[in-house]
Amino acid sequence: MNVPIQPILRQQIQDKINNKTKPLGALGKLEELALQVALIQQTASPQLVNPHLVVFAASHGIAREGVSAYPSEVTYQMVLNFLHGGAAINVFTRQHGIDLWLVDAGVDHDFEPTDTLINAKINYGTQSFLSQPAMTADECQRCIEKGRELVRQIQQTGCNVVGFGEMGIGNTSSASVLMSKLLNIPIDECVGRGTGLTDEQYDYKVSLLGQALAYHHNVGSSDVTQILQTFGGFDIAMMCGAFLEAAEQQMVVMVDGFIASVAFLCALRLNPAIKENAVFCHQSGEKGHARLLAELGAEPLLQLAMRLGEGTGCAVAYPLLQSAVAFLNEMASFESASVSRND
Amino acid sequence: MNVPIQPILRQQIQDKINNKTKPLGALGKLEELALQVALIQQTASPQLVNPHLVVFAASHGIAREGVSAYPSEVTYQMVLNFLHGGAAINVFTRQHGIDLWLVDAGVDHDFEPTDTLINAKINYGTQSFLSQPAMTADECQRCIEKGRELVRQIQQTGCNVVGFGEMGIGNTSSASVLMSKLLNIPIDECVGRGTGLTDEQYDYKVSLLGQALAYHHNVGSSDVTQILQTFGGFDIAMMCGAFLEAAEQQMVVMVDGFIASVAFLCALRLNPAIKENAVFCHQSGEKGHARLLAELGAEPLLQLAMRLGEGTGCAVAYPLLQSAVAFLNEMASFESASVSRND
Repeated sequence: MNVPIQPILRQQIQDKINNKTKPLGALGKLEELALQVALIQQTASPQLVNPHLVVFAASHGIAREGVSAYPSEVTYQMVLNFLHGGAAINVFTRQHGIDLWLVDAGVDHDFEPTDTLINAKINYGTQSFLSQPAMTADECQRCIEKGRELVRQIQQTGCNVVGFGEMGIGNTSSASVLMSKLLNIPIDECVGRGTGLTDEQYDYKVSLLGQALAYHHNVGSSDVTQILQTFGGFDIAMMCGAFLEAAEQQMVVMVDGFIASVAFLCALRLNPAIKENAVFCHQSGEKGHARLLAELGAEPLLQLAMRLGEGTGCAVAYPLLQSAVAFLNEMASFESASVSRND
Repeated sequence: MNVPIQPILRQQIQDKINNKTKPLGALGKLEELALQVALIQQTASPQLVNPHLVVFAASHGIAREGVSAYPSEVTYQMVLNFLHGGAAINVFTRQHGIDLWLVDAGVDHDFEPTDTLINAKINYGTQSFLSQPAMTADECQRCIEKGRELVRQIQQTGCNVVGFGEMGIGNTSSASVLMSKLLNIPIDECVGRGTGLTDEQYDYKVSLLGQALAYHHNVGSSDVTQILQTFGGFDIAMMCGAFLEAAEQQMVVMVDGFIASVAFLCALRLNPAIKENAVFCHQSGEKGHARLLAELGAEPLLQLAMRLGEGTGCAVAYPLLQSAVAFLNEMASFESASVSRND
């Protein structure tokens, strides 16, 4: 009883990696990834089954304040684009056989009912958090619970690896304020150009978000759910719940770019153990992400200067997860291939 | 006649990229890659057809001088491992549907004849270049011509994208000396730990390679074929010819890690135009590669700290090429998806 199985298994997996026909450590980050996935699944022969990517779409009240280069209606227009298969995330998930789930977490639009859009609408967008909370405490709780529920549904398909993306004009503003508040970092270090602001628009965004933080200065920096309720979007809050459930269900959890990393940070504050399950997929071109990753102690697999969201970083990184698992399962050992060692 | 078609096509491709449903530039390096592949193929709708990866294996005389952590017979043992499908490059090419060609460029072993190993044996390994040229002028020319010939054969399958890898205990020594000589960089900045040398072994390797360079000081730094003949391996020289032919045939050419980049440098000195066709796939963990890439003005797609060779960097990067081509061909435009623009 109470045998410390973890260190034994870890050594077993590491030995298996080291015995593959390659110099020690020569597969670099793929070796770390193989070890991580194997530990998550508690086996030296892990498998990635039924990969899923969930895109949470939501409208943001803050978008009405002129913080984005694109008008707010782009959010629902892009949802229609997802439904028709024409967005980047459609292309990349198709490429890699990843099942794509599209979720209306709270878009300011009535969609025609369809099998391919999951109706999880909390409301028709959040309030602008400039001088009021973005959502009610009840809405925030419903987001988190809905995110958890969706992951439980996905798990019933046999899926054991999942990534999350988002679509919501204005959501880099929400994410920047959340990052600033949760990590106590000045807002200007957390704000980027989002979908492509000019210098003038960028300065306005920083100033406006600074005002919002000042207005809500009474919100404590340790009460994650209150912070999420005050500044969050339905997309981010739902993703936070999804991260929690996926990690607690021992799935491999792919973390996308800036906004997803902020949602992950919220989830991490609620359950620090979820870090073990997180594969950071891509360092975004959005300012703030590099700092956020450093705070999380995360070294993403890819640095492709993308800044699109939708979960695209997860999708393009997924083949690397497959490579990590494949070499662990399929490569010969020095013994089986009769290759001489260096000792 | 003489219409400057290139700038028009470039603008056409760039417009197509910019009209996709995403913020301008939001797919980062994938956008640069899409533009490059489209320009190589001279079409705004490029296709990747029958991807191939060729591994050149050769024995190196310098390996007898104690510059590697592994004994020289590992070269032929690893060829057998390739033939049995158990090496990393087997796993990754299988994963991505890349056709793998295995070439005996000059291994010190008589293999049983088999359909899956191409006999291009120049000799049973090179001479140690410590105090004589590694190969004869004739051998060097035969390597280059054989590399070209193999690529012409591959092209006849319809293939338009190819990568090259190598296997040869001792070949980081050869590559380091070639880099030092061709770029006039001190040898200690070009030498790494290869398959995993200790500090002492590393110092010995640097000192020995410095002696070899001193011995051959009369070899001019601009005569690429003489340099290749003096310090090269059959693997590197054959890869040099393969790079030349692949680029001249307007294929997309994937460049792997340290040794492949040195072979590419040799080819580039013989034909500077081949740069346009090169996709640098991975920055190796081998010391010297970062500097070499900087000299080549190259920014590789991946930095996974791998240092295995075999073309593994090409294989794991290949899905990114597919993603670049896929988004260009498959994503909706703002117009086709009725998504509002930012202007």
